[in-house]
Amino acid sequence: MNNNQIRVGIIGCGAMGREHVERLTNVITQTKVTGVYDYIEKTAQDVAEEYNVTSFASGEELIYSDVIDAVVIASADETHAAYVMECLKQDKYVFCEKPLALTAKECEKMMEVEASQGHRLLQMGFNRRFDKGYVEMKKAIEDGEIGEPLMIHSAHRNISQAPGFETDYAITRVAIHEIDITRWLLDDEYDEVQVLKVKQSKRTSGDWLNPQLIMFKTKSGQRVDVEVQTDGAYAYDIKCQVVGEDGTLDLPDPAVVTKRKNQQVSFGLSDHWASRFADSYNEEFIEWAQAILNDQLVGASTWDGYAACVASDALIKSRKTGNPEKVTMIDKADIYK
Amino acid sequence: MNNNQIRVGIIGCGAMGREHVERLTNVITQTKVTGVYDYIEKTAQDVAEEYNVTSFASGEELIYSDVIDAVVIASADETHAAYVMECLKQDKYVFCEKPLALTAKECEKMMEVEASQGHRLLQMGFNRRFDKGYVEMKKAIEDGEIGEPLMIHSAHRNISQAPGFETDYAITRVAIHEIDITRWLLDDEYDEVQVLKVKQSKRTSGDWLNPQLIMFKTKSGQRVDVEVQTDGAYAYDIKCQVVGEDGTLDLPDPAVVTKRKNQQVSFGLSDHWASRFADSYNEEFIEWAQAILNDQLVGASTWDGYAACVASDALIKSRKTGNPEKVTMIDKADIYK
Amino acid sequence: MNNNQIRVGIIGCGAMGREHVERLTNVITQTKVTGVYDYIEKTAQDVAEEYNVTSFASGEELIYSDVIDAVVIASADETHAAYVMECLKQDKYVFCEKPLALTAKECEKMMEVEASQGHRLLQMGFNRRFDKGYVEMKKAIEDGEIGEPLMIHSAHRNISQAPGFETDYAITRVAIHEIDITRWLLDDEYDEVQVLKVKQSKRTSGDWLNPQLIMFKTKSGQRVDVEVQTDGAYAYDIKCQVVGEDGTLDLPDPAVVTKRKNQQVSFGLSDHWASRFADSYNEEFIEWAQAILNDQLVGASTWDGYAACVASDALIKSRKTGNPEKVTMIDKADIYK
Amino acid sequence: MNNNQIRVGIIGCGAMGREHVERLTNVITQTKVTGVYDYIEKTAQDVAEEYNVTSFASGEELIYSDVIDAVVIASADETHAAYVMECLKQDKYVFCEKPLALTAKECEKMMEVEASQGHRLLQMGFNRRFDKGYVEMKKAIEDGEIGEPLMIHSAHRNISQAPGFETDYAITRVAIHEIDITRWLLDDEYDEVQVLKVKQSKRTSGDWLNPQLIMFKTKSGQRVDVEVQTDGAYAYDIKCQVVGEDGTLDLPDPAVVTKRKNQQVSFGLSDHWASRFADSYNEEFIEWAQAILNDQLVGASTWDGYAACVASDALIKSRKTGNPEKVTMIDKADIYK
Repeated sequence: MNNNQIRVGIIGCGAMGREHVERLTNVITQTKVTGVYDYIEKTAQDVAEEYNVTSFASGEELIYSDVIDAVVIASADETHAAYVMECLKQDKYVFCEKPLALTAKECEKMMEVEASQGHRLLQMGFNRRFDKGYVEMKKAIEDGEIGEPLMIHSAHRNISQAPGFETDYAITRVAIHEIDITRWLLDDEYDEVQVLKVKQSKRTSGDWLNPQLIMFKTKSGQRVDVEVQTDGAYAYDIKCQVVGEDGTLDLPDPAVVTKRKNQQVSFGLSDHWASRFADSYNEEFIEWAQAILNDQLVGASTWDGYAACVASDALIKSRKTGNPEKVTMIDKADIYK
Repeated sequence: MNNNQIRVGIIGCGAMGREHVERLTNVITQTKVTGVYDYIEKTAQDVAEEYNVTSFASGEELIYSDVIDAVVIASADETHAAYVMECLKQDKYVFCEKPLALTAKECEKMMEVEASQGHRLLQMGFNRRFDKGYVEMKKAIEDGEIGEPLMIHSAHRNISQAPGFETDYAITRVAIHEIDITRWLLDDEYDEVQVLKVKQSKRTSGDWLNPQLIMFKTKSGQRVDVEVQTDGAYAYDIKCQVVGEDGTLDLPDPAVVTKRKNQQVSFGLSDHWASRFADSYNEEFIEWAQAILNDQLVGASTWDGYAACVASDALIKSRKTGNPEKVTMIDKADIYK
Repeated sequence: MNNNQIRVGIIGCGAMGREHVERLTNVITQTKVTGVYDYIEKTAQDVAEEYNVTSFASGEELIYSDVIDAVVIASADETHAAYVMECLKQDKYVFCEKPLALTAKECEKMMEVEASQGHRLLQMGFNRRFDKGYVEMKKAIEDGEIGEPLMIHSAHRNISQAPGFETDYAITRVAIHEIDITRWLLDDEYDEVQVLKVKQSKRTSGDWLNPQLIMFKTKSGQRVDVEVQTDGAYAYDIKCQVVGEDGTLDLPDPAVVTKRKNQQVSFGLSDHWASRFADSYNEEFIEWAQAILNDQLVGASTWDGYAACVASDALIKSRKTGNPEKVTMIDKADIYK
Repeated sequence: MNNNQIRVGIIGCGAMGREHVERLTNVITQTKVTGVYDYIEKTAQDVAEEYNVTSFASGEELIYSDVIDAVVIASADETHAAYVMECLKQDKYVFCEKPLALTAKECEKMMEVEASQGHRLLQMGFNRRFDKGYVEMKKAIEDGEIGEPLMIHSAHRNISQAPGFETDYAITRVAIHEIDITRWLLDDEYDEVQVLKVKQSKRTSGDWLNPQLIMFKTKSGQRVDVEVQTDGAYAYDIKCQVVGEDGTLDLPDPAVVTKRKNQQVSFGLSDHWASRFADSYNEEFIEWAQAILNDQLVGASTWDGYAACVASDALIKSRKTGNPEKVTMIDKADIYK
């Protein structure tokens, strides 16, 4: 590190990657971006020029570079696992956008490496763990404000999806946020998950299934329903109600001006995750940077990335079989406890 | 009375009068309408025919009739005082729509008669005292939930007014509800009132002043602001926040379905006092009927009607002088304490 | 009928029955109670004395009496079917509290009788169909405000249950309201229903299962989740969100005063269905009386009572098998279409 | 400037000053703190040590230093004017906490200097102009969403005040925020202001007047009421409703988790301005830094600081006279238009 500022390299300069370059350069004081890579050379060079940083010839080269203290992976899903593994082998801090890998097996290998090294290097990009609303809910649960949590009712509604969207992505790219935040809120693992077929919306813009209704059962018997609308919804809208023995907690809508006009009272909703969860992305990287400086990672771990992969696999299987499917995981290494 | 059902005569069969005929016939079990009168003979006859009741030749004849146990006055404002006085002289229960009279002097005479008879006969049609929201606020104040009340912030917003509307009516027909409900909530009398001139709305449909901002100061020093929009407002919308030493109380909006669509969350508002306060009109007459059966009136008294007249006069004077004006009242007879 | 007032006989004078006697006597103008019966003679006699009506020696005698125009059944669940059948045979209007019968077979027989007579005589006591909130939701759906409805998320939470409560009652006495209102809102029948076991609440006061999570699938594929807390909940609280292609609709909380004190904003919730849905009980009987006077029943029919029985049976079976169970119904007679 | 990072010196290291040191060091990427001064030497040295910056021997020395690009003044109110004037003379950017000066005359002199130099150097610390809620309200007004604004109803409620508080501070330190934000929202100047005496709260901890009710009238005739509770309130709570010809806008409460428990629905409120407006302080300095880099200040100007002083003086006078008092200002120099 240099002057308490972490030098970050970013692999993948698409929409998400560029947001990270901007954020780690101009919003987060504890970081600066020193290098980028994208598999489309021109994309990387444009970003490199704009931010006056190095454009690397490959992800590996970026990872090996000694002007890079930590790596952020925001490239295509299928490339995550290899980049992460390279970072772990180099003993470099790495921040990986979801999903951690395409298969649970790859995640297991990462955990082997991390466990053998005896300390965490990876943080998953599950930004909701840094959203004020979810953080407040987590704290209220831990403070015993609603007794034991018994159920969660949640919904994840999107206005649109990028071209190339497929039915599986409703799990691996959309509901994966609920897969993670639910485990985190309830502090439990899944026993069984299920996808229920639902009457389809005429507003779906492609040939994928929309909506889907997803059910989780945790090992302690808690039940969770997750309505997933991948596209065509009235807004980007996220609902989460935790039901405990003594009461319930509701994730708040963002605070915006209430209008009374035209014989109604109304307030606006977000149209995109980037605006809805903007603060959580900032907080996520602020805490990541601080955790690196403290040499003590917080946030979602490789284990959490693995858990999300296993649950996703079971959900995709359930959608095909029509039945609830078991979620079977390996033992948890000590460094993740 | 007949079989515990009060036989009611209604003077004035305009919009409000007809609503009362319907309500006292088909909604309230403890009353039935047995006679009506209107200064337009045809109007009274139509109602009489529809409800199968007697159409009287004059208000006095109706009042004197022995098929009439109690009288409801919903005729033109300038006729109220004489009809009320006649009822009092006949020792008949009378329900009078606001205002009680055009002058405070007339109200004083009514109080003399009632006081000399030693018991209350008149109830003013201040329906908000029977609205669930205001009743809950009154109870919370009396239960000490917010400590001593110090201020009230309120608003009275209307979409439209009938033809013939004049600036004074903003006080005598509109804000008169706030004049009464504020005294009732705070259990105090006014020391001083004021009308403040405000930038005018282009949505006003006639040549009267709109909006007006009205200020009350009570004898104990509580301050009240009342925004009055007589017409052109986005809805019929009534706001009331009581501010106490320990907290505040807000009158609720009516409970209606919340919609999430078109990137916003919304719920509807009323367009008219008749729908906004429908339940309070029912409750008002249910309690009136029960009070007559118990021979122990509740609701706003002749004193309250008088207080509203005095405050109205001071407000109209203030609008002309531009200054705060004192509210000076006679002593309160024992039967109103 | 007498003077356009329906003479009602009430069978069963327990908590619910007594509320009906009071309501049909003193709140609803179009009805009067002329007779009562209870299997505990003293109970009936006390009510008869208080309201000055006849106490009948048996339910049948009450049904046969010619001072009774219509019958309300609020007796023990297992007696409903026989009383209803007697009313139908006597061609008398009958209002029956849920459930219509203990078996679907009994309901089928009732429908045979009604269908053979060619007109409806029975209205089920599904009061929520007369609740302003649900009525507004139904209208919004019919007006196409949210496009096609795809899902409903709902919850039914109770503070306590009377002694003698059993696990099955969570379906037959509690969730039966959601069984009915969901069919009514979606205008569809069930294809499949399921009870999901959930982690149990320490606040359950007996040995029954609490909470339970119930799932419905309609014939058109709509999915419905119903959280059922029979007791131990923080309030009597009813939630219902209909999710359509274009937006959602939420049942409102009752309108009560909002308080700002002790560093929080709060408003109160009901503790009992009787207060939460008081207005709907009034409206239910007002419309029932009017429907009888018009000789054209509205509200839930024998078919709806039957549908609730069939769905309840399938849910109870599902709780035992752990699987989704099919809901199989006979053909619908024309008089119910 | 150095590497696009503005080197800031901070005068005054009390509660507010220390918050600024932390914020400008660790939260805002475009600034770093390079020097501090406090009239208590030890206070400045502690901060200097903790943040590894220079502790200056005087405010003037700090202002003259060439390691300081811009100055933040957070010292005692009576010292603001002299420090500001020194910065202006040095042609250095200066950020001054409210109030700008103790007298309007001092502000006039500052404006003379700035105007003669032909460009703005000073930004007032009116943080609410950077609060998301107020910004959204301002935009909605400018977009014509509520037509012409006619009135504002607002409240400023505090839990407590530091020792040494006096009645005048209710204006100069508390309501000064409403003085500024109202002018900004309405884009108009005051014609007349008034303080109305109100029944006093038993919860006031000192001998100052609490609450006070403040009234503004703008040159175009808009009316504004501001309830001011300096201490003893249930929370730190800020209300602002702008009433326009076509509707109203309400400042939102911060978004926090809603809880349903103990038979009520509730959500929490802030206890302090520092948490309530934390985001606005960040945004204020982010935009200040960017504006300096762009050499084009935004935010409240010397004119706005002057306007607040003039209105404060008139309000304090009104409290003593009991009458509305005129607000008389000099002509506005071109650089403030």
